[in-house]
Amino acid sequence: MQDKLTLMIPGPTPVPERVLKALGKHPIGHRSQEFQQIVKRTTELLKWLHQTNGDVLTITGSGTAAMEAAIINTLSQGDKVICGENGKFGERWVKVAKAYGLDVTTIKEDWGKPLDPEKFKSILDKDDEIRAVIITHSETSTGIINDLKAISRHVKAHRNAIIIADCVTSLGACNVPMDEWGIDVIASGSQKGYMMPPGLSFVAMNENAWEASKRSNLPKFYLDLQSYKKSIDKDSNPFTPSVNLYFALEESLSMMKDEGLSSIFNRHKRHMNATQEAMKSMGLDLFAKDGFGSPAITSVEPTGLDAETIRKTVKVNFDILLAGGQDHLKGKIFRIGHLGFVNDRDIITAVAAIESALDQLNELKKPLGTGVATATKILNKQSN
Amino acid sequence: MQDKLTLMIPGPTPVPERVLKALGKHPIGHRSQEFQQIVKRTTELLKWLHQTNGDVLTITGSGTAAMEAAIINTLSQGDKVICGENGKFGERWVKVAKAYGLDVTTIKEDWGKPLDPEKFKSILDKDDEIRAVIITHSETSTGIINDLKAISRHVKAHRNAIIIADCVTSLGACNVPMDEWGIDVIASGSQKGYMMPPGLSFVAMNENAWEASKRSNLPKFYLDLQSYKKSIDKDSNPFTPSVNLYFALEESLSMMKDEGLSSIFNRHKRHMNATQEAMKSMGLDLFAKDGFGSPAITSVEPTGLDAETIRKTVKVNFDILLAGGQDHLKGKIFRIGHLGFVNDRDIITAVAAIESALDQLNELKKPLGTGVATATKILNKQSN
Repeated sequence: MQDKLTLMIPGPTPVPERVLKALGKHPIGHRSQEFQQIVKRTTELLKWLHQTNGDVLTITGSGTAAMEAAIINTLSQGDKVICGENGKFGERWVKVAKAYGLDVTTIKEDWGKPLDPEKFKSILDKDDEIRAVIITHSETSTGIINDLKAISRHVKAHRNAIIIADCVTSLGACNVPMDEWGIDVIASGSQKGYMMPPGLSFVAMNENAWEASKRSNLPKFYLDLQSYKKSIDKDSNPFTPSVNLYFALEESLSMMKDEGLSSIFNRHKRHMNATQEAMKSMGLDLFAKDGFGSPAITSVEPTGLDAETIRKTVKVNFDILLAGGQDHLKGKIFRIGHLGFVNDRDIITAVAAIESALDQLNELKKPLGTGVATATKILNKQSN
Repeated sequence: MQDKLTLMIPGPTPVPERVLKALGKHPIGHRSQEFQQIVKRTTELLKWLHQTNGDVLTITGSGTAAMEAAIINTLSQGDKVICGENGKFGERWVKVAKAYGLDVTTIKEDWGKPLDPEKFKSILDKDDEIRAVIITHSETSTGIINDLKAISRHVKAHRNAIIIADCVTSLGACNVPMDEWGIDVIASGSQKGYMMPPGLSFVAMNENAWEASKRSNLPKFYLDLQSYKKSIDKDSNPFTPSVNLYFALEESLSMMKDEGLSSIFNRHKRHMNATQEAMKSMGLDLFAKDGFGSPAITSVEPTGLDAETIRKTVKVNFDILLAGGQDHLKGKIFRIGHLGFVNDRDIITAVAAIESALDQLNELKKPLGTGVATATKILNKQSN
């Protein structure tokens, strides 16, 4: 049906009406006092979301712009770095690092398995010259959550290295206490836990990161975070920002503040649990290693079936958009996004839609209703 | 009055309701066929606007991102380039070029005076090694239009150089026939002639520019136009684009197509003429050298008066936002933006508001009504 789409992909995620209304307002001058107030308020709320006293800078750009900014502002050509790679976004870190001539050691795991913190420790212990450890927290392509806290602890024990994390699909979905865990740089994007359309991205920098930035010699201009820092201290931006997305940002962050961090994290956990258990109860395998499923995305591997056929059936019959597998996982997995502006109704309908699609395709292995019953039980038991 | 603001700054410019409505729609998946259709249609319309058969690539970012992309995709470290500099955006070109280690020769003119094409010719004639000439077409900070056509002609006569132009406030305001004039790279931004909020920028590349890109060795990732080119050929984007701004882009470009290029250019010319003559008739000096006023912005130098006081009075009494002077021109000039979604009513009210402000400040040198009468006469005589 036209205009009836429900997004259950890991980004763009659904956007509340309040946020869309704010987005659709007439723009104002980006050098006006009124806009400065918006910059000031959103900056405070961004610090709250990141649980940091450091800086959070807003860039007009995709999440990849924030990832690149994280690297080119803290490192120099030839710097030794370790990149964790167990999915498409881990691969992207490696590509960005190599594009700038960094000396990259890659710690790989199979897609669907988490990074092993001990492997990071063993390389860090042996090499004083490592300048950064760069990882993806929630790997969007596979639905894995990596142990950022443990890896960060190993980096903290090192003399020179900082830790840079892509928290694009973990921030606003689970606890990422930047200061407590000692994460030096966090990159994120607006179309995820922020409950906003894409177009803004964010780089959080602590004191260590700024210290590292002093020796960084990689060329940059638009993504030079020193200019953003100078501007943010005056509640402003170095370049004309996406004014309307700032309106939306203020609205969505206010909604998140009203809900509260622990409620947001609990909601995502319940939705993850309900989705995972519902899939298993229908006889479908989860792609992520047990215990490492992301609170933002559940990847399902319907062994023996074409994942794309299930995904398309759900789309055609129910106007629910699930994500497919990327690269070698295309046709092998489908991914259910339960990130951001998602309520229990969305989880129940997604499960029901997948169950219905399997029934229609004559591939249902358990009695019709099993998935929805499982999800319902968990949602009722684990109250919000 | 709250929510009654009229923007008459050179960006953000006013946005039509249709475009805001499109902006405020629920986002869709950026890898969907529906979104591919939007990319396809906007790409065709962008080519129409640029009057080119080359490529026009859409970047989620500010205009400066497009400027940087233009440089880092066509040039290499140490390359000799000529930058024209007669305002703040000319200065920005120089800063970007130097940030990437280019060997920059600057051709300067005083702010308010146009670049001299002959000076470009004389350097080009003497030096075969020049790789690019980089200029600003409409210099937003001063309201000057530079002679891009003449400068481009001199570049075409050179063996090696390409021409890169910032057309941020000229595209969609006056004729910029990319292919006819042989402009190799054009950078522009959404919050200008496009009648959209800020957040998207555009880089147009012709065959010469792609040829130059083959030898470019500057490091890049987010702004690597080869990835955008590969994606656009599949009606897609390399990174998650600003989906909602794409909705707005399709709407605004359709409106522009309906109006037609010659009507758009004629409208801007009439508004420029009416504004310039109205200011002169009130005894106010224009800042731009005679004959070189931009069709997008009229800069006014109210000799003996504080420009900021006039600007603030207009804002407080009429909710019309004019732009002030930048850097050393602060307090010396104010700038009237008549770019994009501007009609005759906007011109008349801006003139009336300035006239009223001068009257209230007891600084009116001519009978009250002179400015509005002058503007009205010109608008009536030069029909749309």
